[in-house]
Amino acid sequence: MRSDRLIYLPLGGAGEVGMNAYVYGYGPPGKERLILVDLGVTFPDMDTTPGVDLIFPDIGWLAENRDRLEAIFITHAHEDHVGGLGHLWRRLKVPVYARPFTAYHARRKMEEQGAPDDRVETALPWPEQTEAGPFRVGFLPLSHSIPESSALVIDTPLGRVIHTGDFKLDETPLVGEPFDPALWAEVARPGVRALVCDSTNVLSLHEGRSEASVGPAIEKLVAKASGMFVATTFASNIARVRTLALAGRAAGRSVCLLGRAMRRMISAGVSTGVLADFPPMIGPEEARDIPRKELMLIVTGSQGERRAASAQLSRGRYLGLSLAEGDSFLFSSKTIPGNERGVISVINALSERGVEVIDDSSGEYHVSGHANRPDLARVHDIINPQMVIPMHGEHRHLRAHVKLAQSKGRPGALAVNGTVLDLSGDAPEVVEHIETGRLYLDGSVQIGAMDGVVRDRLRMAVGGHVIVTLIIDEEDEVLGDPWVETMGLPERGVSRRPVVEALEEALRRFMARLERGVLLEDERFEEALRRETRRVAGDELGRKPQVSVVISRLAA
Amino acid sequence: MRSDRLIYLPLGGAGEVGMNAYVYGYGPPGKERLILVDLGVTFPDMDTTPGVDLIFPDIGWLAENRDRLEAIFITHAHEDHVGGLGHLWRRLKVPVYARPFTAYHARRKMEEQGAPDDRVETALPWPEQTEAGPFRVGFLPLSHSIPESSALVIDTPLGRVIHTGDFKLDETPLVGEPFDPALWAEVARPGVRALVCDSTNVLSLHEGRSEASVGPAIEKLVAKASGMFVATTFASNIARVRTLALAGRAAGRSVCLLGRAMRRMISAGVSTGVLADFPPMIGPEEARDIPRKELMLIVTGSQGERRAASAQLSRGRYLGLSLAEGDSFLFSSKTIPGNERGVISVINALSERGVEVIDDSSGEYHVSGHANRPDLARVHDIINPQMVIPMHGEHRHLRAHVKLAQSKGRPGALAVNGTVLDLSGDAPEVVEHIETGRLYLDGSVQIGAMDGVVRDRLRMAVGGHVIVTLIIDEEDEVLGDPWVETMGLPERGVSRRPVVEALEEALRRFMARLERGVLLEDERFEEALRRETRRVAGDELGRKPQVSVVISRLAA
Repeated sequence: MRSDRLIYLPLGGAGEVGMNAYVYGYGPPGKERLILVDLGVTFPDMDTTPGVDLIFPDIGWLAENRDRLEAIFITHAHEDHVGGLGHLWRRLKVPVYARPFTAYHARRKMEEQGAPDDRVETALPWPEQTEAGPFRVGFLPLSHSIPESSALVIDTPLGRVIHTGDFKLDETPLVGEPFDPALWAEVARPGVRALVCDSTNVLSLHEGRSEASVGPAIEKLVAKASGMFVATTFASNIARVRTLALAGRAAGRSVCLLGRAMRRMISAGVSTGVLADFPPMIGPEEARDIPRKELMLIVTGSQGERRAASAQLSRGRYLGLSLAEGDSFLFSSKTIPGNERGVISVINALSERGVEVIDDSSGEYHVSGHANRPDLARVHDIINPQMVIPMHGEHRHLRAHVKLAQSKGRPGALAVNGTVLDLSGDAPEVVEHIETGRLYLDGSVQIGAMDGVVRDRLRMAVGGHVIVTLIIDEEDEVLGDPWVETMGLPERGVSRRPVVEALEEALRRFMARLERGVLLEDERFEEALRRETRRVAGDELGRKPQVSVVISRLAA
Repeated sequence: MRSDRLIYLPLGGAGEVGMNAYVYGYGPPGKERLILVDLGVTFPDMDTTPGVDLIFPDIGWLAENRDRLEAIFITHAHEDHVGGLGHLWRRLKVPVYARPFTAYHARRKMEEQGAPDDRVETALPWPEQTEAGPFRVGFLPLSHSIPESSALVIDTPLGRVIHTGDFKLDETPLVGEPFDPALWAEVARPGVRALVCDSTNVLSLHEGRSEASVGPAIEKLVAKASGMFVATTFASNIARVRTLALAGRAAGRSVCLLGRAMRRMISAGVSTGVLADFPPMIGPEEARDIPRKELMLIVTGSQGERRAASAQLSRGRYLGLSLAEGDSFLFSSKTIPGNERGVISVINALSERGVEVIDDSSGEYHVSGHANRPDLARVHDIINPQMVIPMHGEHRHLRAHVKLAQSKGRPGALAVNGTVLDLSGDAPEVVEHIETGRLYLDGSVQIGAMDGVVRDRLRMAVGGHVIVTLIIDEEDEVLGDPWVETMGLPERGVSRRPVVEALEEALRRFMARLERGVLLEDERFEEALRRETRRVAGDELGRKPQVSVVISRLAA
């Protein structure tokens, strides 16, 4: 009778794009020894998380079971895989393993949050493996849109699991290791129990294109441009930044990088050795003195972020540089869903300056870093696993990926965050659901998604905030009248009277009607005032605001 | 010497998609007699306009010059062309002209806002014309994604102007009039001074496709579906709703419309005669008793709107109907930029129910209602105007459209909202800029975009709201200590103390240090408290909230 089992538990990334965090466990049920793969973030938006800076997976379950956790493995240095490490490590306190370029970023994340960066250990690539409890974990190089992305080969007492991380099948990625089908086949040869696989691009039906395919189109574009040439892309896509820089140099232009994230990524690439041949750059001061048609800027802000270099340039002068009629601006990037408005606003601001904007609608100037459906099918076939567990993707992606696996006769499971899968049998089996959720970094503190803080902000954003103050004297008598202040409400309502006046009058009348007993019970009294305020505001404004009632009781 | 001039002045729609409102004038400078073409709305978003219900162009200038305004002409019944009429008409009080289907909607808009619907007059199509001061205006039928869309032929003492409204070149639009190149050529024969032309799709490089082209693909899709088939599209796209309904009937399904807007559009189409042959429908009660594979729903909510039928169905039961494994859901629509998150969330919710979602990524199930670049070039050539004025589009669209005109040797002008163009000469000339902007419908009242109401809401949404209350007694002495309440702030800051406590203690100390004189000046005192509160909150939370200071002075 087998008593030990192999489990898989996504805490983030399964049912969403971003915030990756996956747990594997082996041992007796409830006593499995655990490892964590990735600890990423996702990004807030005004619709659901105004004021929030970063979103982490809720690692409460893992922190409670910290004594069972052996180690953390980071597949690559994208924020949605490593961005939560510094903020959350202190609750886990286990060694972190990553390859050099990834480890460089992981250490910086630790340091920035005051966590010990020496707990990040540099791992060598496959066939080296790191022991972590019952697991032996190797970093298998593959291609993605950042150097040194790796699949994890996780050897367990029940056989081999391959966790792909994010990847594409690129045999000419320009920077970082290529996809090597022979190496993959070799790793798969002993048999693979489970392939846990990136799903983000499963709805893209064509084979993915190589990073090398965008170079010639970009070179042609830069060569024919007459004014200054500006290009933006994801800062971490070092290969693309290099391609852009080489296109600039080939057109006889001096190249200047703008944006902290981009400069940092390039220097990380150089210092860790993944980027050997980056062309010489100039600084912004020097760039100011160079004729426009001899200058190329490579800038951050491909998603229209308000504070990034591209948005700043679209609005005016940035570090002494500014764009003008006849200049060109290339988005060598795709717009991540949800960022359309920001990107369009940068494009229109550039248009107002007379700048020629080239976006990626032609598909010529950007390729994705993820495997498309035919690529995924190819990987399934190379690895030929006993089962496929789709990870990293929204529900629709996971669902389509399960179907893809099943279409080739391989069992799959749609496991969203919190689902505990038992991988010990012939097919994955759901054995438990644990509570998961999200944590917010809000300014400098962490809050729970369900704390109500953000809910209150959203309510104030939609309806404004009314504050009713009232003084009750030593004899429990109301002193004067209720006083109303508003924030975020129209000044006048349908009656054309000032809303504050209308509310104060209504509350005065309300107080006169109130039974005296109610005054003695703060909570009941406040609730009554709140309800009346919302009712009157609703009549005047067609909308009910948030209401705070502040009762000052003078000490007897 | 000519003293009368012909002017064009966009108040909305030029520099944005939505909120169309264009003024034409003829007469001595500053005394031109005016007409208004369209009076539309645009839609709010949480990023910039939380809590706002609708956005109108600021018609302040027009209202001030109301005595010079002759009439309003509405080109078609889309919200971004007629949605502002009911809300703003009372400030203009002139007759409104539209063709029957459009007039039907215009009257409803008037009625809903208590404006006199009998001021909307039904116009006949070209060659009929309506006199309005120095103008004679005819409705020239063309094709769009709603029936009876019309260009306006505006005859002026200085020649003919054609204002296209929104349009595409569709010779088989299925419902409504086709594009008729011979008719257009005939109208252009006497010579056209200016073509004022829809720009929204100028960045689409391929010829547009006909509404008739989507039918076969949709029919095939419905025919092969096994469970219930649900389709969503824009409610006003009556031709598409009909195509979907016919596909359902062809597959032997009963068809049920869900969503008020859609039922209203279809009944408007039938009652005004533009829709002659709509297949029989069943109601939701009846639909409940029909086997899934014999049922088709056509529903509102193609943009993922939270309260529309598609979002409700994605979340659960709606009017007794619910979706399940094996059902299909078609988006016969495109996602308008900015609505991606809402649409994706509906798709994922449907995926969780096991529903097969077909979106328009293949391009087979939706065609746009606007003219693409080659179509625009064709219209320029047919009309062969003396000048081209691009309207309805973001800055990037207007800019590309001007370039398109210029590439054929026709002068054009990039005139954004507020630009007064003189069209009297050989080329358009900017003669003035008037102040324009936006009005918000906020609940039941109108507020100006610059009133600060929405700015305060955004600040509360990002930073929360702190209320500091303080009582000052009859002798101008502080009674007790400052009292703090918060809304939308984390409970504890970096010190791990409750934020309210930290703030109250800091304010107590601050009060002790304060010169007594400051107490006597409300404004200075409040500002000092506000600054200190923001400073301490910033230290504790890493973010500065909105602060309201409420000082109660006890009467002497």
